[in-house]
Amino acid sequence: MSNEIMLERVESIMKSLLDEVEYDEVTRLFNTLSGGKRLRAKLIFKIANTHEDAPLLSAIVELIHAASLLHDDVIDDATIRRGVASVNATEDSKTAIMLGDILYSKGFSSLVAFDKDIAQCIADSVTALSKGEMMDVVMSESFNDDADLYLEMLYFKTATLIEAAAKSAAILEGKDASSYALYGKNLGLSFQIIDDILDIVSDTATLGKPALHDYVEGKCTLPYIYLYQDLNEQEKQKLKSLHKKELSSQESLWIKEKMNEHKSIERSFALAQELSNDAIAVVDDADLKVIIETMMKRSF
Amino acid sequence: MSNEIMLERVESIMKSLLDEVEYDEVTRLFNTLSGGKRLRAKLIFKIANTHEDAPLLSAIVELIHAASLLHDDVIDDATIRRGVASVNATEDSKTAIMLGDILYSKGFSSLVAFDKDIAQCIADSVTALSKGEMMDVVMSESFNDDADLYLEMLYFKTATLIEAAAKSAAILEGKDASSYALYGKNLGLSFQIIDDILDIVSDTATLGKPALHDYVEGKCTLPYIYLYQDLNEQEKQKLKSLHKKELSSQESLWIKEKMNEHKSIERSFALAQELSNDAIAVVDDADLKVIIETMMKRSF
Repeated sequence: MSNEIMLERVESIMKSLLDEVEYDEVTRLFNTLSGGKRLRAKLIFKIANTHEDAPLLSAIVELIHAASLLHDDVIDDATIRRGVASVNATEDSKTAIMLGDILYSKGFSSLVAFDKDIAQCIADSVTALSKGEMMDVVMSESFNDDADLYLEMLYFKTATLIEAAAKSAAILEGKDASSYALYGKNLGLSFQIIDDILDIVSDTATLGKPALHDYVEGKCTLPYIYLYQDLNEQEKQKLKSLHKKELSSQESLWIKEKMNEHKSIERSFALAQELSNDAIAVVDDADLKVIIETMMKRSF
Repeated sequence: MSNEIMLERVESIMKSLLDEVEYDEVTRLFNTLSGGKRLRAKLIFKIANTHEDAPLLSAIVELIHAASLLHDDVIDDATIRRGVASVNATEDSKTAIMLGDILYSKGFSSLVAFDKDIAQCIADSVTALSKGEMMDVVMSESFNDDADLYLEMLYFKTATLIEAAAKSAAILEGKDASSYALYGKNLGLSFQIIDDILDIVSDTATLGKPALHDYVEGKCTLPYIYLYQDLNEQEKQKLKSLHKKELSSQESLWIKEKMNEHKSIERSFALAQELSNDAIAVVDDADLKVIIETMMKRSF
């Protein structure tokens, strides 16, 4: 099945599942969402491409992912999602919460049709991602210089559902679950690290938001943590004092120059590269190699 | 097992399930919640009292119920829940959304251990209750005089999880699932109708909120729908004009007097009584009879 036909199939199953809710308002709201890259669906298809349940599993995982984004946007007060206005912006936060709850629960109830090990794997990952979202919010309240803690949060918030998608597809197809789980986990982690880098190095027009937005929002991403480690005591205090504040162009420039000087971006990118290499090493699959390489390249 | 020991067991399982999330912040927040009556847990214990999985099933259903209340309070801007400040009031809306997501997903992932028919029954009811919440919000935007539509919304929003609790407990214990499902559904519907009546007939001190609060919030509950049917054209317009508005004491009095005149409360109570009678008729169980009778009596 070509990528296009496969993705159309997934969209159509997602719509059918939501039609089962039998409420026009849900269908209307769902149709306003931008589908995004459908990375998780593509991953499931690449890994379990011959299995008849791959389209349904993909649709369920994408419903759950869409639900998590709806709630994320409310929690982060984000008004833009994938280049279009978010549901909390076009409708209101309440609608985004309720639609998210419907997508989550419909995803879960459709999951019951699968074998227990698959249902458990996906369901557990949703608990982990909800925990990750809370960790992200709690950690944004103060400056964090602990890289391990940051990566743990990233794992829960971003990587766990991608890991579960890859692992459950491997279970479905009778492939080695732990290798594909590791691939998915590392793909998710590198993906998010690249996202964090892009928030710093891209220009405002490309980002659709001001650069260094993460730090202004309180998110101490990896480049900031690495930079902090390399600064002298006085500079450390200065970086901390800029945390969660609107930045003047001078202050932004200082951060970027210091990152240049200490190669904080390069160090972050190197970690993403290392995680990607490990991911490719465990699965001997040309298509999965292309997925991760394309993702790494979107940055530069 | 006595009621007290049973409920302590359920509380302790709920805490253990949340401890598995391994995030102290979740445990801390969960401990601030008031447990409430645990109606659903009591119901499961009454129906499946000899089954070893009854405590776990009860804990899961109560986690899901607690999650739905957390999100309800955000959606309704409610600052009081069971006599104590709601999480969206003491912390913030974001925290209530995130904690709700964690309780929902932990509930779902624990459900996977059960047979598919039980997991499906509970999971489907969560989709229904999310749909009911959205119907409630959408219907509150304009005056509704359709009693069937109102009862359909009540079914989804309030009765469906109670129905699922009773039905899944019956499946667990090998009792007749459809009878217990009907009992649960009717218990849920009468419960909510009584709640709606109390919002009108109780005094402010007992309610902890102004009387007629529902109507001010836009909720056209059964007594208003019945009253509307019995008013003349001019009075119909007056009632409609007061919908979703702050009411003067004169306006409140007019509504109450008209309800007295047309016996709108009595008609609503009669429907709750009829639903309760039907519930008792299908299950030959003294304990379940007591549960529904106690619930009906809390009003007057």
